[in-house]
Amino acid sequence: MSVLRRGHGASVEEEEEVMEVEASPLVRSATADEPLQSGGSRHRERGHPTHGGLQSSHRLLAYSDALISIVATVMILPVCHTKIRTDQELEASLQQLLATKIAVYIMTFLIVTVAWASHIRLFQVIEQIDDVLALLNLACMMLITFLPYTFSLMASFPDDKLGILSFCVCAIIIGLIQAIIVIYGFHQPYLLNALICASNDRTSYKYQILKVTLQAPGMFLIAAIMSFIYCPVAYAVLALVIFLPYISQGTQWCGNKIKGQKEIQRVSFYTFHPNEPLSKERIEAFSDGVFAIVATLLILDICEDNVPEPKEVAVKFHGKLFDALIDYGPEFLAYFGSFVTVGLLWFVHHSLFLYITKSTRLMGLLNTVSLAFIGGLPLAFQLTHEFAAKSHNEIEAIQISCVIIFLASLFQFAIWVAALHNEKENLHHHIHYGGKEHAFMFAKLSLYPSVAFITFCLTYILSRFSTEIFHLMQIIVPFAFVLLRIIVRIALVILTWLFSRLKPRTSVLSEEEESVISGNET
Amino acid sequence: MSVLRRGHGASVEEEEEVMEVEASPLVRSATADEPLQSGGSRHRERGHPTHGGLQSSHRLLAYSDALISIVATVMILPVCHTKIRTDQELEASLQQLLATKIAVYIMTFLIVTVAWASHIRLFQVIEQIDDVLALLNLACMMLITFLPYTFSLMASFPDDKLGILSFCVCAIIIGLIQAIIVIYGFHQPYLLNALICASNDRTSYKYQILKVTLQAPGMFLIAAIMSFIYCPVAYAVLALVIFLPYISQGTQWCGNKIKGQKEIQRVSFYTFHPNEPLSKERIEAFSDGVFAIVATLLILDICEDNVPEPKEVAVKFHGKLFDALIDYGPEFLAYFGSFVTVGLLWFVHHSLFLYITKSTRLMGLLNTVSLAFIGGLPLAFQLTHEFAAKSHNEIEAIQISCVIIFLASLFQFAIWVAALHNEKENLHHHIHYGGKEHAFMFAKLSLYPSVAFITFCLTYILSRFSTEIFHLMQIIVPFAFVLLRIIVRIALVILTWLFSRLKPRTSVLSEEEESVISGNET
Repeated sequence: MSVLRRGHGASVEEEEEVMEVEASPLVRSATADEPLQSGGSRHRERGHPTHGGLQSSHRLLAYSDALISIVATVMILPVCHTKIRTDQELEASLQQLLATKIAVYIMTFLIVTVAWASHIRLFQVIEQIDDVLALLNLACMMLITFLPYTFSLMASFPDDKLGILSFCVCAIIIGLIQAIIVIYGFHQPYLLNALICASNDRTSYKYQILKVTLQAPGMFLIAAIMSFIYCPVAYAVLALVIFLPYISQGTQWCGNKIKGQKEIQRVSFYTFHPNEPLSKERIEAFSDGVFAIVATLLILDICEDNVPEPKEVAVKFHGKLFDALIDYGPEFLAYFGSFVTVGLLWFVHHSLFLYITKSTRLMGLLNTVSLAFIGGLPLAFQLTHEFAAKSHNEIEAIQISCVIIFLASLFQFAIWVAALHNEKENLHHHIHYGGKEHAFMFAKLSLYPSVAFITFCLTYILSRFSTEIFHLMQIIVPFAFVLLRIIVRIALVILTWLFSRLKPRTSVLSEEEESVISGNET
Repeated sequence: MSVLRRGHGASVEEEEEVMEVEASPLVRSATADEPLQSGGSRHRERGHPTHGGLQSSHRLLAYSDALISIVATVMILPVCHTKIRTDQELEASLQQLLATKIAVYIMTFLIVTVAWASHIRLFQVIEQIDDVLALLNLACMMLITFLPYTFSLMASFPDDKLGILSFCVCAIIIGLIQAIIVIYGFHQPYLLNALICASNDRTSYKYQILKVTLQAPGMFLIAAIMSFIYCPVAYAVLALVIFLPYISQGTQWCGNKIKGQKEIQRVSFYTFHPNEPLSKERIEAFSDGVFAIVATLLILDICEDNVPEPKEVAVKFHGKLFDALIDYGPEFLAYFGSFVTVGLLWFVHHSLFLYITKSTRLMGLLNTVSLAFIGGLPLAFQLTHEFAAKSHNEIEAIQISCVIIFLASLFQFAIWVAALHNEKENLHHHIHYGGKEHAFMFAKLSLYPSVAFITFCLTYILSRFSTEIFHLMQIIVPFAFVLLRIIVRIALVILTWLFSRLKPRTSVLSEEEESVISGNET
């Protein structure tokens, strides 16, 4: 709770200043006619010469995003590489092993994302870097990439304190490095965010940010000490550190809604408020990294497993390579299908973020969950072609794939809903509620969830043809995307015509029409 | 040769126009006071509204770069996963297998990079994208990610025509998709590069670009047909397609230098001239991808191999996890050492490209070779900890590591030399030859080659302590980077003082002094 109350100690004047600091980037990004693609919009020219190793932090952040996204996703590989033979029953021990590995994957993904979010917030304060900061950041990155290992230890030896201890030590050092970065940044004010740099009350900012930065390491220190006394308590403290901000914010928000209180607009740097702005470019960069690594893990699998052995070809297929490759046919189909799915989910994500002008912490969280499911796609792919032989497991594999695709695309949809909740600030004006682009975006976002849902249902009804249905779905969807604009346009013309006969004039569509349109599309 | 002569058919007026088109981005990037970090500088505001799915291509390109860089690098994994037991002599068959895999890795890297370079050139012409182009690009990406598989087939079955045939078919389809993108782009001129869009002679541009785009698929078609007749000829044609532009340009350049002819400045879109500009941002994005995936493959190895089995811990170490982990000690050291090396090589790369204002095809090529060696670092890491037990192989592994680091950093140095060759255009004015920043950059770039070289030599002299020397080197280098600026400053002060006593006044250092300084630093 101390996180929430942080602002109360400050004077009212300070509070207002914080709001002012926060408001101006919103205004900046709201005038989004030109910098819709704002890759370079944050690089302000402050008149400082760029010699002496001073540099805008764009590339450093892009590299960090790439590193973190790959580390977050790559833990799906041990899950995929768990060997399941088709002639082997899923024994209890194997199931447990698989469950452990999946848990490690999900927890690693979430924890790495939490570290990433704190990294974003840090570099929203520090906007220029020099060589020292670049090297400090690399040290920070090294420890973040080490987190998955400590988590693997924790999962393999839940009763041993060493796992949780090494995790805590890593997390504490990360926190301390971030604190050093903050201190160094305030020591050389030209590195800071322009608004903080120009502020008169820089010292109070410094202590405020340092306090929040050091809170997590403090909690981890408690967890580390607890691990010596009684391990489960240490785990509880750990869970608290990671989820408390979200839970407490969620309950507070719900409470406010129930009580009917008006929400206090106290958005500022370094809060865990769901409306706290989160760098949109970095969310995009992180998402791109996850999509790219998922697409590439697929081809790695193909290259490692599906190149036949020369001896096998000579003996089994009488030296005919083509026959040997036909054996792998379904796997290639699965590869292309998965690549298309990942590619199109990226496409939807890309279209969506094109129209988002400001991203909040809540949208970032929804995006993370969506990405965690997308990271599971290689697993789905593996399942689809591992179980291709056995009919019953095949259906299960396809159903798991459908569920993963459904959830991944549903959370993308949720991002949009969250953005619509405050559309004046969050969305580009072209896509505001009720317009033509709005209908088109709705259709685009609801295409995958509905297709996945329909496929899932069909596998129950037509269980014999489930593989065929799944592959057919994967082939049809790209064409649906190509034709979507035309279909939506036709549907809109028909609907406008229909409603113009009923009402005197409806240039802008109402909510009911919207849902009818999307129903037609999907 | 037809590539080179392409321009001669055009009229003189056209030639001039091409030059004009080309000159202006140079001028734009030469005025590099503000857009040194030009993440968003290429997004011109053309007054077109961004509705209707029209979008600047920045994120699409970033995603493509991430995909391509990961695909290029990930082929090192099969090399690393070749199991070499310490008690097993390197048999001839195993050596051959390893050599084949390394060859596949290097060739894949180069071929994927060639595909990437053609992708860059394509999207230097087409600067805005819509949904259709995004989907076409995804199709193109899917085929590029499939190239490593076809190459694995070629390596495993060099005598079978199927490998080369599938490679050619992929390459032809990629070329055709790119041609479709060009045609679509010229059909909707607002998608094009502003200068081409404003030009009166758009049709001639279109045919010129289409001609170059379709040349490679044409050659691949010939290779495919040849594969039916006689395989080696097909391979020769393939090699020709990939290397001819570089070879012919190189010979032409050398010829001009020998004959003393003045080089004709005929830089334009879609040539293979070494001075052809190549998007600097995309080179950075691609490099970041490679560095990130290399750093992450290391932690994947650690997570997959170095989490001890619970049973083993219970039996062998009496349930003491810490003792079990101490067993892995050298591997963790190797991991941290490798991460530091990759991170610092990225840091050098980052510092270097910060001062590069325009990158050419030649610099791109040098960068690619440097990255190919960096992609080999996981192999070096694997070797270092695979062979930790046997003394003789250990030295070999460390020497291989040194050679890889030396070559990777040497080619980074070569990028700088290539940039200095035309420093007015290529480099930021702060770093021009002879200044203080120049000396500092020189020291930065020569640190790794010299350290790697010294370590390599020391392993011969002090072969008993080679591992210790190697790890010591990896620990010292980061501190050297932190202190580099101070060391260079002191050295410069001393040198200036020394030379001021000899000569009347030397504010700018001469070449001899430079080399002395760098000698002191490294």
